[in-house]
Amino acid sequence: MPPTTATAAANNLHLGIVGLGLIGGSLALAAKRAGWQVSAYNRTAASSTAAVNDGYIDCCVNRIGDLGNCDVIFLGVPVSTYDEILAELQPVLSPRSIVTDGGSTKQDGIAAAKRQLGDLACRFVAAHPIAGKEASGWTAASADLFVNHLTILCPNGADEDAIATVTMLWQQAGAQIHTMSAELHDTNLAMISHLPHLLAYALVSMIDKQEENAKLLQFAAGGFRDFTRIASSHPEMWRDICLANADNLLPMIECYQQELAEFADYIKNQDSQALSTRFAAARSLRQQWLNTLKDNETI
Amino acid sequence: MPPTTATAAANNLHLGIVGLGLIGGSLALAAKRAGWQVSAYNRTAASSTAAVNDGYIDCCVNRIGDLGNCDVIFLGVPVSTYDEILAELQPVLSPRSIVTDGGSTKQDGIAAAKRQLGDLACRFVAAHPIAGKEASGWTAASADLFVNHLTILCPNGADEDAIATVTMLWQQAGAQIHTMSAELHDTNLAMISHLPHLLAYALVSMIDKQEENAKLLQFAAGGFRDFTRIASSHPEMWRDICLANADNLLPMIECYQQELAEFADYIKNQDSQALSTRFAAARSLRQQWLNTLKDNETI
Repeated sequence: MPPTTATAAANNLHLGIVGLGLIGGSLALAAKRAGWQVSAYNRTAASSTAAVNDGYIDCCVNRIGDLGNCDVIFLGVPVSTYDEILAELQPVLSPRSIVTDGGSTKQDGIAAAKRQLGDLACRFVAAHPIAGKEASGWTAASADLFVNHLTILCPNGADEDAIATVTMLWQQAGAQIHTMSAELHDTNLAMISHLPHLLAYALVSMIDKQEENAKLLQFAAGGFRDFTRIASSHPEMWRDICLANADNLLPMIECYQQELAEFADYIKNQDSQALSTRFAAARSLRQQWLNTLKDNETI
Repeated sequence: MPPTTATAAANNLHLGIVGLGLIGGSLALAAKRAGWQVSAYNRTAASSTAAVNDGYIDCCVNRIGDLGNCDVIFLGVPVSTYDEILAELQPVLSPRSIVTDGGSTKQDGIAAAKRQLGDLACRFVAAHPIAGKEASGWTAASADLFVNHLTILCPNGADEDAIATVTMLWQQAGAQIHTMSAELHDTNLAMISHLPHLLAYALVSMIDKQEENAKLLQFAAGGFRDFTRIASSHPEMWRDICLANADNLLPMIECYQQELAEFADYIKNQDSQALSTRFAAARSLRQQWLNTLKDNETI
C-alpha cells in the first residue's frame, strides 16, 4: 500500500537511493512515509520503475549521476561496489550533499569514501541498520523494517550537520541510533554477526561433504533449522563481509577454535561439572540478553 | 483442554509415564486423546496430581513401581537416570510388559536396559521423538507436539510385538516412524543435533568471557538470536548428551574445526572464489532441505 502523506512531517528533503533492495527499498518506503521526496536508481530498472508506477517513490533515474541533486544519497549496495559508485557520484555532488550507507562493515566503506570523494569525504556518514530478513530485494522491502531496531552511526570525522541529517532520517524510519567508531563497529559485529554466519556456513558445508547428506538431514529438526538459518544468507554479500573484516574475524575464529577445544577436552575427560557449568552460564547470559530485548521492545 | 475420547479408537491399553515433562507429558496427552488409559509418576508430585485433577490423565502414582501393571511404560527422564529407574521397575514387570523411552542418545539407554532388565531387556524399545520446544515441563506439554514429526525407533534386538506396539503408540501421536540401529542414530544425531548445540553454547560462552558482553550484545539481532536459540537448552540434559555421545561427538568436533580452519585460510588468503562457492553450496543444500520439509509438511 503506498504510504499516505497525511501524517508525514512537512519535509523539503530529497533522498536518493542507489540500490532498491531490501535495505534501500525499506528506507525509501520509510522516508516517503516521513515526508521525504524519494528518487531511486536500481541496476535492474524494473524494480525502480515499478516502485514509481505503484506510487511508492517519486522518481526513478537511469544513471547514478542523476541523483546528484538529492540532499541525501543512500548507498544500498554491496560495500565492494562503493569505489565505482562513489566515483560516479563525486562529480555531481555539491558541498552540501550528504552520502550515507547501510553496509555491514564500516571501515572499508569509509576508506572508499576517502579515496573517491576527496574534499567531500567529510560529507559521508557511515551507518549500519541492524535489521534484515531472509528474503531480499524490493519485493521484500517494508517501511517498518527499522522500527525499534538499532542503527549504528559511525561519524568518523563526518561534518556535524551531515551526521544530524542522517540521524534524523533513521529516527524518522523508527530506528534507535547508537554511535560508535567504525573500528569498534567492525570489531563488535565480527563477534555477534560475522562469526556466527561463518560458523553456520561451516556446519552446513561440513554436512554437504557427507556422502548421504540428504538422508542425514531428514532427521534434522527445528534446532538445526534455527542454527543454520543464517547459512541461507546471500553468499556474495557474506563473502565480501568476511574478506573486508578479515583483520577482526581471523583472531575471533582462532578464539572460537580454542573455546571449542576446551569443550572437547571436557567431553574427552568426561568433566561433567565443567560442562554443565559452562552450558548453564551460556544459557544464563542469553536469557539476560533476551530480557533486555523484551524491556527495550527490540527485535 | 482435556482431550475428549469422542474420536479415540477403542483401546484397552494402559500407558505409564515416568517423568511428566515436555516429552512425557506430551506423549501422555497424545495417548489419552488416542484412547489409552494413562498413569504417571513424576518426581514433583504437583505436576502429576494437577494433570489428574484437570482431567488430562487418569491416575498418578507415588512410586515408579506402581506403574508395573501398565502395558507400556515410557521413560521421559534423563538417560543418565535409566539405571536407577529400570532397577526399580524390573521387579514389577511381566514378560508382556513393554518399556520404551524418548532419550536423545540411544546406545547408552539400551546398555542400561541390558544391565537392569536381564531377560526382559528384549522388552525395551529405544525411541527418540525428534520434536521439542524451548519451554520445558508439564506446562509446556502439548498433544500435538509429535504431529508430523519424526520418531526414530531403534529396535536393536527388541521383541517384534513390543516394536509393533511402540510403533502404534507413536503413530497414534501423529509421528512418522523411521527405524535405524542405535549406533547409526547416535552418529547421525551427533552431526545434526548434538554438534550444533555444542557450537551454539561455545559461541555464547566465548561472548560470556568478554569484559563488556552485555554492551556487545546490544548490537545482536535476529540472526544471533536464531543461531544461539539452542544455547538456551537445558544445560544438564545437554551435558549428559555430550558425555554419552562422546565417541561420535569428538571426531565431529575435530572435523568441524578443520572445516573452520579451511574457511579461515580462504579469508587469510582473500580467496574470494572459494568463499563464495562454499557459501553458495551451503545455502543451496539448506534450501534443498527446506524444500523437502515443505513437501513432507514436517516441522
